[in-house]
Amino acid sequence: MAFLNAHYLKLKAGYLFPEINRRVKAFCEAHPNTSQHLIRCGIGDVTEPLPLAARAAMHRAIDELGHRETFRGYGPEQGYEFLRHAIAENDYRSRGIPIETDEIFISDGSKCDCGNILDIFGHQNRIAVMDPVYPVYVDTNVMAGHTGPPQGTAEYDGLFYLRCTAENGFVPEIPKQPVDIIYLCYPNNPTGATATREQLTAWVEYALAHRAIILFDAAYEAYITDPSLPHSIYEIPGARSCAIEFRSFSKNGGFTGVRCAFTVLPKAVEADTGTGEFQPLHPLWNRRFSTKFNGVGYPVQRAAEALYSAEGKTQVSKLIEHYMGNAQILREAIASSGLSVYGGLNAPYLWVKGSGGSSSWDLFDRILGQINIVVTPGSGFGKAGESYFRVSAFNSRHHAQEAAQRFQKIIW
Amino acid sequence: MAFLNAHYLKLKAGYLFPEINRRVKAFCEAHPNTSQHLIRCGIGDVTEPLPLAARAAMHRAIDELGHRETFRGYGPEQGYEFLRHAIAENDYRSRGIPIETDEIFISDGSKCDCGNILDIFGHQNRIAVMDPVYPVYVDTNVMAGHTGPPQGTAEYDGLFYLRCTAENGFVPEIPKQPVDIIYLCYPNNPTGATATREQLTAWVEYALAHRAIILFDAAYEAYITDPSLPHSIYEIPGARSCAIEFRSFSKNGGFTGVRCAFTVLPKAVEADTGTGEFQPLHPLWNRRFSTKFNGVGYPVQRAAEALYSAEGKTQVSKLIEHYMGNAQILREAIASSGLSVYGGLNAPYLWVKGSGGSSSWDLFDRILGQINIVVTPGSGFGKAGESYFRVSAFNSRHHAQEAAQRFQKIIW
Repeated sequence: MAFLNAHYLKLKAGYLFPEINRRVKAFCEAHPNTSQHLIRCGIGDVTEPLPLAARAAMHRAIDELGHRETFRGYGPEQGYEFLRHAIAENDYRSRGIPIETDEIFISDGSKCDCGNILDIFGHQNRIAVMDPVYPVYVDTNVMAGHTGPPQGTAEYDGLFYLRCTAENGFVPEIPKQPVDIIYLCYPNNPTGATATREQLTAWVEYALAHRAIILFDAAYEAYITDPSLPHSIYEIPGARSCAIEFRSFSKNGGFTGVRCAFTVLPKAVEADTGTGEFQPLHPLWNRRFSTKFNGVGYPVQRAAEALYSAEGKTQVSKLIEHYMGNAQILREAIASSGLSVYGGLNAPYLWVKGSGGSSSWDLFDRILGQINIVVTPGSGFGKAGESYFRVSAFNSRHHAQEAAQRFQKIIW
Repeated sequence: MAFLNAHYLKLKAGYLFPEINRRVKAFCEAHPNTSQHLIRCGIGDVTEPLPLAARAAMHRAIDELGHRETFRGYGPEQGYEFLRHAIAENDYRSRGIPIETDEIFISDGSKCDCGNILDIFGHQNRIAVMDPVYPVYVDTNVMAGHTGPPQGTAEYDGLFYLRCTAENGFVPEIPKQPVDIIYLCYPNNPTGATATREQLTAWVEYALAHRAIILFDAAYEAYITDPSLPHSIYEIPGARSCAIEFRSFSKNGGFTGVRCAFTVLPKAVEADTGTGEFQPLHPLWNRRFSTKFNGVGYPVQRAAEALYSAEGKTQVSKLIEHYMGNAQILREAIASSGLSVYGGLNAPYLWVKGSGGSSSWDLFDRILGQINIVVTPGSGFGKAGESYFRVSAFNSRHHAQEAAQRFQKIIW
């Protein structure tokens, strides 16, 4: 008699986006003439064409696969040396961070990496997540059996929620209870907040002192414009002994439909074997790649490599400028409508506090009803997101400008 | 204090292929003039160009990503409808197997799927694997904590090994002890054996009677030439209630460097929640895809779809004919050298029994030394593989012919 993993049964239904779709559909059916005017600022997906350098590299790679002499089958599971080297050199070593090429692991997505990383950890760890939070961190821990059932509607027993509020600048305080694994995401999804060097230093010092490990999600680092802000956790002294970093080509190179990302796992990061002895995690992650993965497709790895060429870098910069231009337009418009707007300066997300104690869903309905714009209710990301909503800057300029005009007309 | 997953520490070192590489390197250093004559028949990786239909489809898809109007970002995690439909229609429904489109899950590889499927199962299951065995089935169970430490050099406590021998035609007998999850792979890697309809029926009847689940790896089904042999486990009545099938485009379309595969999980497959209640596994697998995966890249899915076009089917047939032509050439040559050869009739692998009780590594060394061919020692796949070696038909015709001539000259 086969048994299923009953931890999955604790998961709340994937509530947020289906509920958004339900309400949008109902609205469009009730107002058939406005549906064509709808502007979607809800989803964090890129809209602009894939950079030419990446497309050209993929075309060339596909042609190589068409000849026996240049055909490539299975590649190294951890990624081709040409891409691991380009990443280590451009994202780390040229910025003074001594990451080795074989500390880079090429994958098909940060979402996958954030979930899969739990494979190499024991079940004894006390897990801390931010609130509001990218739901994947929570759900993968539920699926792995690291939590109890959900409490009421929102949170799971057994996770430590680190509250991120306007008062703490959406960077949580160091917890009083000890925790072993800490998920941090900066620039943050959903709040668009960034963490200063001093704030990250406090977390690294905590991790070193407690032999905890920081899982640092830097998927949006390319959106940092303030030169004082760290792009990588490894800019903080000591982080190479206590942090694993997640990066992606989804939001800088527009690879959401192409699929390429990477993790950085320095060889100095160690964890307890359960007997008080510490061993490095690098061989475990390496073994996981060899055993449960077969590498990213060759044309995709060539496309990612091309983002580091001179043309590729220019094209990525233009994409970032485009989305950050949208963020500025939207930020100014919403602020002038009278609400408090956070984020959007070093991140492609605006995090907006509603007025008069309205709930996130009230705000969602009002924005949809009055100005036909779809946003994401903040409460969908956690308890501390209540009364906020998220606006994504991933859009065409035309839609961003049109959305900005409409926000200025809304009556809160 | 963070804890690592100590089950990883039970894993034996990835022994087989590194040891092969070590011996080949030592041989080439000792005989520098022969290294250029070396023929590799060891690895199960394709060698021939990617089919034109797949390349053309990828080129078109990449061009689509170059325009805002046709750009695609995140797709459905479970795969695009166009590909799921093509698979369900061509591989199943047109052959009389009523698989629904949403029972197909598109992934980046069968190796990933075979490992990831364990996520949705509980830890109470008694796991049965074939011996010899594709090592991924074993290692992923070790990593998930489903076994004890290795016994001596070869096997793990807590797994049931189903012996596959020449006497049983490399199709194992139904075990006397009850088991809950059974890995079957036909056409088989490494033995090249196939299972008849009657043999698979016995397994399905066992699974139905014991509410066990069969994980059926059909990565090599395209190599079946005998029309009496089933291509899918779902050709067996009742299998849609007790089997999950794994398929891949790696070995039919030559996608080992492109990365696309799929699982079939019928909605009728159920497992015990741990309380005696049975629930379907389909929603769990669907949730795993949504939470820990972001779908296969759009150009890759278009390439896979193209394999189902008229031209694509013709090009895949040509590839299969090519590799099966190699298999026939090698099979005849090795048989005429006096050894017993199995497989190679409906599979791209030959499984060869050495003479005079030689060990697999003795055979490996003799073949390398005398005729400069690299094979895979059978003992690397498990205890029952001892005294066998595997010869892969994945090669150019030129190399296959040359290898065949050399095998006829060997002195056993």
